[in-house]
Amino acid sequence: MYRTHTCGELRISNAGQSVTLAGWVQRVRKMGGMTFIDLRDRYGITQLVADENESKEVKAQVEKLGREYVIQASGVVTERQSKNPKIETGDIEIRLSDIRILNASAVPPFTIEDESDGGEDLRARYRYLDLRRGPLKKALLHRHKMAWEVRNYLSSIGFLEIETPYLIKSTPEGARDFVVPSRMNPGQFYALPQSPQTFKQLLMVAGYDKYFQIVRCFRDEDLRADRQPEFTQIDCEMSFVERDDVLDTFEGLIKSLFKNVLGKEFGEPFPRMSYADAMEYYGSDKPDIRFGMKINDVTAKVQGKNFSVFDSAEYAGAICVPGCAGYTRKQIDELTEWVKRPQVGAKGLIWIRNAKEGIKSSIDKFFTPEELSALAQGMGALPGDLILIMAGGKKKTRTALGALRLEMGNRLGLRKNDVFAPLWVCDFPLLEWDDETGRFYAMHHPFTAPKPEDMDKFFSDKKEDLEQVNANAYDFVLNGTEVGGGSIRIHDAKVQERMFQVLGLTREDADYKFGFIINAFKFGAPPHGGIAFGFDRFCALFDGQETIRDYIAFPKNNNGRDVMLDAPSYIEKEQMDELFIKSTAPAASTAPAASAEEGKN
Amino acid sequence: MYRTHTCGELRISNAGQSVTLAGWVQRVRKMGGMTFIDLRDRYGITQLVADENESKEVKAQVEKLGREYVIQASGVVTERQSKNPKIETGDIEIRLSDIRILNASAVPPFTIEDESDGGEDLRARYRYLDLRRGPLKKALLHRHKMAWEVRNYLSSIGFLEIETPYLIKSTPEGARDFVVPSRMNPGQFYALPQSPQTFKQLLMVAGYDKYFQIVRCFRDEDLRADRQPEFTQIDCEMSFVERDDVLDTFEGLIKSLFKNVLGKEFGEPFPRMSYADAMEYYGSDKPDIRFGMKINDVTAKVQGKNFSVFDSAEYAGAICVPGCAGYTRKQIDELTEWVKRPQVGAKGLIWIRNAKEGIKSSIDKFFTPEELSALAQGMGALPGDLILIMAGGKKKTRTALGALRLEMGNRLGLRKNDVFAPLWVCDFPLLEWDDETGRFYAMHHPFTAPKPEDMDKFFSDKKEDLEQVNANAYDFVLNGTEVGGGSIRIHDAKVQERMFQVLGLTREDADYKFGFIINAFKFGAPPHGGIAFGFDRFCALFDGQETIRDYIAFPKNNNGRDVMLDAPSYIEKEQMDELFIKSTAPAASTAPAASAEEGKN
Repeated sequence: MYRTHTCGELRISNAGQSVTLAGWVQRVRKMGGMTFIDLRDRYGITQLVADENESKEVKAQVEKLGREYVIQASGVVTERQSKNPKIETGDIEIRLSDIRILNASAVPPFTIEDESDGGEDLRARYRYLDLRRGPLKKALLHRHKMAWEVRNYLSSIGFLEIETPYLIKSTPEGARDFVVPSRMNPGQFYALPQSPQTFKQLLMVAGYDKYFQIVRCFRDEDLRADRQPEFTQIDCEMSFVERDDVLDTFEGLIKSLFKNVLGKEFGEPFPRMSYADAMEYYGSDKPDIRFGMKINDVTAKVQGKNFSVFDSAEYAGAICVPGCAGYTRKQIDELTEWVKRPQVGAKGLIWIRNAKEGIKSSIDKFFTPEELSALAQGMGALPGDLILIMAGGKKKTRTALGALRLEMGNRLGLRKNDVFAPLWVCDFPLLEWDDETGRFYAMHHPFTAPKPEDMDKFFSDKKEDLEQVNANAYDFVLNGTEVGGGSIRIHDAKVQERMFQVLGLTREDADYKFGFIINAFKFGAPPHGGIAFGFDRFCALFDGQETIRDYIAFPKNNNGRDVMLDAPSYIEKEQMDELFIKSTAPAASTAPAASAEEGKN
Repeated sequence: MYRTHTCGELRISNAGQSVTLAGWVQRVRKMGGMTFIDLRDRYGITQLVADENESKEVKAQVEKLGREYVIQASGVVTERQSKNPKIETGDIEIRLSDIRILNASAVPPFTIEDESDGGEDLRARYRYLDLRRGPLKKALLHRHKMAWEVRNYLSSIGFLEIETPYLIKSTPEGARDFVVPSRMNPGQFYALPQSPQTFKQLLMVAGYDKYFQIVRCFRDEDLRADRQPEFTQIDCEMSFVERDDVLDTFEGLIKSLFKNVLGKEFGEPFPRMSYADAMEYYGSDKPDIRFGMKINDVTAKVQGKNFSVFDSAEYAGAICVPGCAGYTRKQIDELTEWVKRPQVGAKGLIWIRNAKEGIKSSIDKFFTPEELSALAQGMGALPGDLILIMAGGKKKTRTALGALRLEMGNRLGLRKNDVFAPLWVCDFPLLEWDDETGRFYAMHHPFTAPKPEDMDKFFSDKKEDLEQVNANAYDFVLNGTEVGGGSIRIHDAKVQERMFQVLGLTREDADYKFGFIINAFKFGAPPHGGIAFGFDRFCALFDGQETIRDYIAFPKNNNGRDVMLDAPSYIEKEQMDELFIKSTAPAASTAPAASAEEGKN
């Protein structure tokens, strides 16, 4: 072992001990005849002191040191004269008696500090150096702890972690598969799993009862910001359960994470909200309930006053923004522009300033002050609040109001990242009608069960009935982000058959697409359901961050590239020949000639 | 929840309770007016009893039951008249008051019993049914526990589990890569990792100090029996360590597994054996030390007696088989045939029966009884032992003797699968000379460090010196199977440069093949080393089994196929077009027309 202690370990109580540390040189400072070295490892920073009068050898070594040199240093733990309260080892320093350079370092292309001077791309290329920085170290430690707690909790309540294969079969539904040509089965391909959905249902058929897995999933999608082609899921499934059993179980998991990772106790059950309520009051299927500012349906109250914007609208909704009655015209205009951006897509914004000195609005022409006051009071507005109203199609207007609500929450600082508001959203519609193809599609997937109380409607032939059937599905939402989702699955062959019928699939269609699992279900499938959490995002959110990239050791960029590895890359023609494939890419489609030559060795 | 208890839970102390169970019908037996149902779930089997005189409804349901039906059953826990000591719930039964069929089952294609009547292929196709059988359930539970203990132990001593990517860069060295065409980077391919070797070394460069991961690895090799194209590894790496630090750390892990999984305490340190000794005494680099029967070099003792087989041989070696002096001529002939098989490849077998009634051998013509006795005594043979001798080239003869030793161990029942003999094998040769290409190859990989004491020889220009350099590498061997292997890595640029030189690589070669990691090593690589364990095999061996397939939920067959999924499979032309590839397979290279048609939906 190259060290007796780590760089985060020594305290005043160790004073007088002879120790050996090893780590990276963070900083070297000379003051008079003394040299101070900050030595860093995973655990912290410890100050080393070399007195040039004491040892020529030490002095000679110290003079060679540069940033990020790896050294081994021995000496005596000594109380510092000027203590540093910012670091845990700040009471002591090591008086060097020996120092050995284990490895030199080239000058790193950016500073290894909490706030680095390196741009994103440069840091990505030297990810192994970026990973030395405090925030990333903290992020990966946090992720380790999260994974550990998940496994600990689920194992403690009888869940088994079972590994499922990564080389599976390509299926024609869902997102695009990544595929893997098979050398031993010419012309055939494996696919990488988009999720272990099929396998976890098979494990229920096999009687495994309580399954989980922290598992990699793969989707070949056009990447949006902060999406990764490979991502990690906490994948779970249980048998002999109903919806509330699943929610209670995983609420237990999440509470244990809050407690053991963040030290936060959640005594009360997490709120459960229907999809319908989420849309009505928050204009979103993933409400951020860290703050109120709910959407009010004011349609009935505002129509019939000869204001055509309202009178011609299917719906009018309003939010009451606390304490913002003092917004200037300019501020309101700017907000109006904000809601008109294509991302929100509203036509305009109507405002009512419920100021202490009197009510004032952009619709004074159509409404008396009394009418406006009544409207404000109906929403529970307090003096000093600003009411913002939108009107139009119901769905679109609610969504726009939802976006505006979040924006006002941001502006008012109501979305603090150390406040956590977990929420279950339930009772999603089972089916979605598509006008273009004139058929229903499954909102989740065709194995999601209808709610038991909607079964009659599910077997009805009326489109209106079918549109009202709710799925026995649920999402876990944290601070306005969907972190998990799942459902009770269909285990009854008659219900499954009806589902395929509703989706317009013939028996042959169904067999071709899902034959494999349909077949398994003939041999005694138990009632079952499950959930999957996006682990990368869960880690980030729990740590109060929004970007997942810091929580992945070696992430890919928005083009799906690993810029550190420079992957993907061209491969050799020989390699393709063996796999019975040929590139049809327009440009250079094989490794450069010289390289291919080398590769033959 | 469909149940109040599991089928493995109820005891005599629960007598009188009203309970509800859910599970699969294992067996239905009628006796008089009573029907006995064995109900099975993950946790065990509980007997249900329906009395036809008590409830018409129950009787009607019971009559519909068949094997593997899924039912929910309620009743009162009652003490059995004839107890079944073979099962944990054998003291009680449930007097049924209510029974509900949750799902019917088709007749399974083989019996769901510990010993099934289904052939291997049939069971593979219906893996989800095979997984219901006791031995497989036990195997997956065991695997879960192993994984859990590994994570628990390593986390408790400061290791971080860090996930590394699965979509990486293809490298021209080592086994064949599985590759993944990139849609977003036309003509380019990702590779699936053969191991996270590069990433774990980068994590050390990044300062993560103690890393582990239970991780999937992929190798596109021609499959031997019991090899899988995807397999799981416990991958580990540490910084600021020397060899013994690594061995001590992972000896701690393995001891904790022995203790917590098997209840076996290993007080003593595991033996550590040099590669040279392993080859000399066991004719193998992975000795099974559950039994002795070591190989004796008898070359000097047997030469010069005018027996040309010995006199012309480079080497003669012998094992002393306890208590087998009574072997008949036929038995010995049969053994001789056994060693002549191509798998062993020996030319013949010489025997000495050290019988109580006198010594006798196949070389009586050349040796006096006194000489034979001296030979036997020199090997520590006891009266009643059989000595078996082979002669020839040293390496080949030792290996053949090693194989014979294992065979005799098997025949004598010395290789019990509930006895565990762990062993570290160390000091492997660093380099292997290849006569054909006239150059050295790295026995492990080019980043494996030479042993510190062999550094002078490593920088010598003499081939004989280089051949004597040992690697700072080690294998973990359990009961004659290599379960883990690793090494201290090179962190010194001069040593690395010398290694490339010895391997005949120019600087350009080295940069092309390993440039990426060489570059990372310029920025302060710490001394580091690690190990990786084959987790599938580890699980099987720990459970006293040899075949790994039972320890993998969804394994592939020897052609790399998942016969349950029927993967790999043909994909659609559209899918290939999007990926800029074309199949060059001779036969049908796309999905059958009808299927492709369906797939468009």
